[in-house]
Amino acid sequence: MSSKRIGFAGLGLMGSRMAARFLEPGYELSVWNRSVEKCAPLQAKGARVAASPRELAESADVVFSSLADPPAVERLVFAPDGVLQAARPGFRYVETSTISPDLSRRLIEAFRERGADALEAPVTGSKNGAAQGTLVLMTGGRRETHDELLPLLAVLGPKIIYCGEAGSAAVVKLVGNTIISFMLEGLCEGLVVARKAGLPFETLLEVIMASGYASPYFTFKGGAIARRDFEQHFSIDLLVKDQNLMLQEAHVRQAPMPGLAAIREVFQAARAQGHGQADIAAVVQVLERAAGL
Amino acid sequence: MSSKRIGFAGLGLMGSRMAARFLEPGYELSVWNRSVEKCAPLQAKGARVAASPRELAESADVVFSSLADPPAVERLVFAPDGVLQAARPGFRYVETSTISPDLSRRLIEAFRERGADALEAPVTGSKNGAAQGTLVLMTGGRRETHDELLPLLAVLGPKIIYCGEAGSAAVVKLVGNTIISFMLEGLCEGLVVARKAGLPFETLLEVIMASGYASPYFTFKGGAIARRDFEQHFSIDLLVKDQNLMLQEAHVRQAPMPGLAAIREVFQAARAQGHGQADIAAVVQVLERAAGL
Amino acid sequence: MSSKRIGFAGLGLMGSRMAARFLEPGYELSVWNRSVEKCAPLQAKGARVAASPRELAESADVVFSSLADPPAVERLVFAPDGVLQAARPGFRYVETSTISPDLSRRLIEAFRERGADALEAPVTGSKNGAAQGTLVLMTGGRRETHDELLPLLAVLGPKIIYCGEAGSAAVVKLVGNTIISFMLEGLCEGLVVARKAGLPFETLLEVIMASGYASPYFTFKGGAIARRDFEQHFSIDLLVKDQNLMLQEAHVRQAPMPGLAAIREVFQAARAQGHGQADIAAVVQVLERAAGL
Amino acid sequence: MSSKRIGFAGLGLMGSRMAARFLEPGYELSVWNRSVEKCAPLQAKGARVAASPRELAESADVVFSSLADPPAVERLVFAPDGVLQAARPGFRYVETSTISPDLSRRLIEAFRERGADALEAPVTGSKNGAAQGTLVLMTGGRRETHDELLPLLAVLGPKIIYCGEAGSAAVVKLVGNTIISFMLEGLCEGLVVARKAGLPFETLLEVIMASGYASPYFTFKGGAIARRDFEQHFSIDLLVKDQNLMLQEAHVRQAPMPGLAAIREVFQAARAQGHGQADIAAVVQVLERAAGL
Repeated sequence: MSSKRIGFAGLGLMGSRMAARFLEPGYELSVWNRSVEKCAPLQAKGARVAASPRELAESADVVFSSLADPPAVERLVFAPDGVLQAARPGFRYVETSTISPDLSRRLIEAFRERGADALEAPVTGSKNGAAQGTLVLMTGGRRETHDELLPLLAVLGPKIIYCGEAGSAAVVKLVGNTIISFMLEGLCEGLVVARKAGLPFETLLEVIMASGYASPYFTFKGGAIARRDFEQHFSIDLLVKDQNLMLQEAHVRQAPMPGLAAIREVFQAARAQGHGQADIAAVVQVLERAAGL
Repeated sequence: MSSKRIGFAGLGLMGSRMAARFLEPGYELSVWNRSVEKCAPLQAKGARVAASPRELAESADVVFSSLADPPAVERLVFAPDGVLQAARPGFRYVETSTISPDLSRRLIEAFRERGADALEAPVTGSKNGAAQGTLVLMTGGRRETHDELLPLLAVLGPKIIYCGEAGSAAVVKLVGNTIISFMLEGLCEGLVVARKAGLPFETLLEVIMASGYASPYFTFKGGAIARRDFEQHFSIDLLVKDQNLMLQEAHVRQAPMPGLAAIREVFQAARAQGHGQADIAAVVQVLERAAGL
Repeated sequence: MSSKRIGFAGLGLMGSRMAARFLEPGYELSVWNRSVEKCAPLQAKGARVAASPRELAESADVVFSSLADPPAVERLVFAPDGVLQAARPGFRYVETSTISPDLSRRLIEAFRERGADALEAPVTGSKNGAAQGTLVLMTGGRRETHDELLPLLAVLGPKIIYCGEAGSAAVVKLVGNTIISFMLEGLCEGLVVARKAGLPFETLLEVIMASGYASPYFTFKGGAIARRDFEQHFSIDLLVKDQNLMLQEAHVRQAPMPGLAAIREVFQAARAQGHGQADIAAVVQVLERAAGL
Repeated sequence: MSSKRIGFAGLGLMGSRMAARFLEPGYELSVWNRSVEKCAPLQAKGARVAASPRELAESADVVFSSLADPPAVERLVFAPDGVLQAARPGFRYVETSTISPDLSRRLIEAFRERGADALEAPVTGSKNGAAQGTLVLMTGGRRETHDELLPLLAVLGPKIIYCGEAGSAAVVKLVGNTIISFMLEGLCEGLVVARKAGLPFETLLEVIMASGYASPYFTFKGGAIARRDFEQHFSIDLLVKDQNLMLQEAHVRQAPMPGLAAIREVFQAARAQGHGQADIAAVVQVLERAAGL
């Protein structure tokens, strides 16, 4: 794969950082974002700005997408000036957004019908991981397409795990965010009781980190809570969107998720209480409030 | 602390392994267990068998306890032939069982009234950790008593965290088991949907272990589930007991725990379905059954 | 309103019985159903069978709809041969299906754009109520349209409650089915414990019916459970659909529903366990199974 | 049963009104209450005030109890100056408090061992029902004792339902309060969404009361919520106590109660937020707060 023309759609918290990694020799980067102002920083560093998703796709061999939710992805691809209009044999589309397995399958199918192909490649890792190229990528679609795109995916992260046919990676990603939801909720429920019992936060975190159930995630989010630093790494609005997608998939697959259902309502309350754009760690405030703190 | 006479009450999965660590030069070990048969293996290796908790305490400088539940602890200490009857100035009692913060406070108080002292020292780590002396210990009580007993506690594990006054370590331990409950339930809810969606278990575990929320605990329990190996490391009956203690403490402290409440009912169903004596990983079977698998 | 041409789309459990009430002098009834066989009984009694929703609307002054779910309603109205194609000044559409407030608003808006008007009129009451014209109707839309259609609505039930603008009746209906979900789940959770405690079912029902919280609903569903009669009055599939719509509306309105979220997972399990087409009272079997009965 | 000496222990919201019904010709009433001030109103109307539960029992043929929680009942009966000390052949004890089935069995057993007998007779109905003698009574214990005490029970309410052996009535009562919890929580979750959707409260209540799931309970509590009148009929503290007893019984019987578990946490939050002594209808404020209202 010599000089490669990359298109990147969606320059949010994650997308802007991921796109920037293609400002390297060997790639020509075009970008598109719904509100064009967000394109300026990358334009200043040499990226081309496309007028529409369709135009983005016309001027690129591979288009990556990183958007907030399924409706945005749907518009990006299927709108009259959408990416799909420029799909042609050899064209590749990589969806890194977290969307429903069903939409993932529909997208990939649509590109194939035009002789192109697509890969779902949801990522995990914070905005720092996006900037540093240390994300974990899960892929779904044809194995050959995964193999073909590996060099490009590697620009985003060293760990790329092929999950199976179209939709598989979406399920794996949703399960991952489910586990995050459980870990964070469990930590926060425990913290609030411990706080009411007069225990120092540090002691609790020290024990957690020394135990068999330790995880860097507890250090990361526990530390943020200790500092009351709720600046967004992963917003509550986005996690609730993913919890909804997971519960919807569980509904389709007919698998009860009683724990997630309970947890979702707590995060839902966080949105109602105005924390939708705060980091997911801010959910602790809902539990504190419920506890009369 | 030269040659030390150690008493150990409760020779279950954890206790028998912890007690065995005092079969070293420098300690004289006496043991007691409700059903005397369980004393035989340690007796064969040189331990003395006491006829009652009281007698155990009379022949020891420090008595450790590792029992299944609060009522058993209550009997061990407060019964007419209980440990407390032999408490005297200088005598020390170490409670490693997971009990309620309230019972912990009452125990310690009772020993102090007799001029002795007690420490709560709940542990975390599996039966392997107990055997190898790699448990994590949380302690609560007087700081000086903690300091004084450190050399003995170190026989059980290298990591000993002082949590605060009597009852503090019990809260920390319960929060720890709460977090375990969330992690395991989240993993299992995710696994069942993923299985219904046709995803290989290994892929899911590979992603989890590569992500920021990775934890050795997921490898440990995920592996057991993959092998359908539900041999008891930590029984469902015991975890439900701890979930009940946590919810009770949350009630006393007036802190809602909506996630734990939902999760507890799933583990409760596991008991109803005959898995009480299986390892906590067996909870996956409740979710599978609910999902019609 | 002299001789009125009525169209009825959707001849399921409720629709077939509601439609039959217009086989009276004073009405000309046309019917349409996706699978045409279901039209035969009404055709035998004098109803005309329309070839498409559009044709149904062309030959009627007012079209009623009673369908299983929002996608079916969406197709009925918006498809190329849908009802909307035949909308014209003076034409009226009455949606009795339980759909999302949002779809309700969209439907009504679409008819208004064509100079026609529509009313949402979800109903409550079992299939018996549908047959006997004793349903309760909640209406949403223009008050004048409600007033104009009152004589026709009265054919279905004597109690017709105007709830407000478009979407209001959908919310009220969803809240009603939420309350049903709570009552039935509460009854069943209680019954299972009582059964495990050896209490006769009749005693429990007798106490419930004598208490301040008595409701005909408990007699109705409690009796069915006592007889193990799970023949469908209101299917689990349909109630779960409504629970999903309610949780979705709660999401849009940002109002947590922790109880409903927990209850939904139990009904979800009922679907997974093969009871989707049974009556909602069959949910008791999920709880029995969870309890190891 | 000619002139009968009645003792009444516990003069709270319910007890004071129930006791007053024995200020009729044909009964001699003695009363006891932990804080003696509460005895004054009844003393002014002719009741004797006993110095201790034991003395109360010595001067009465039948002692009724109406206390706040199981520990209070335990003290009343088993304390050194408790009722049990005065138990003798022919003496009868009637427990109207809501306690655990287990405590109920222990109480009754203890009286029998002394040649006396006891009946559990938990009641349902508000303080108005207590005052007017329109309570519903559930009884458990020996059928002959139930028959023997019928004339006295009838003073409290016309509807007296024999549930079975000792402990049965406690279970039935707990199930009843479980159903109340579900009905109230369901109503409140629905009300909050409806309020956020701009629906008038009255419309919602009108629909509920017209539907098959109507219940006087919805009128009673719905009306209180509409008026924001949270004056205590049945306190949140007491209902949470009963929810705890129910979940404990469900634990013993190994029957999962996922809905009640979720609901309990909401009422628990009500306590944490300072509504413990308000009426159970005040739980709506927790949901409003969670929803950011």
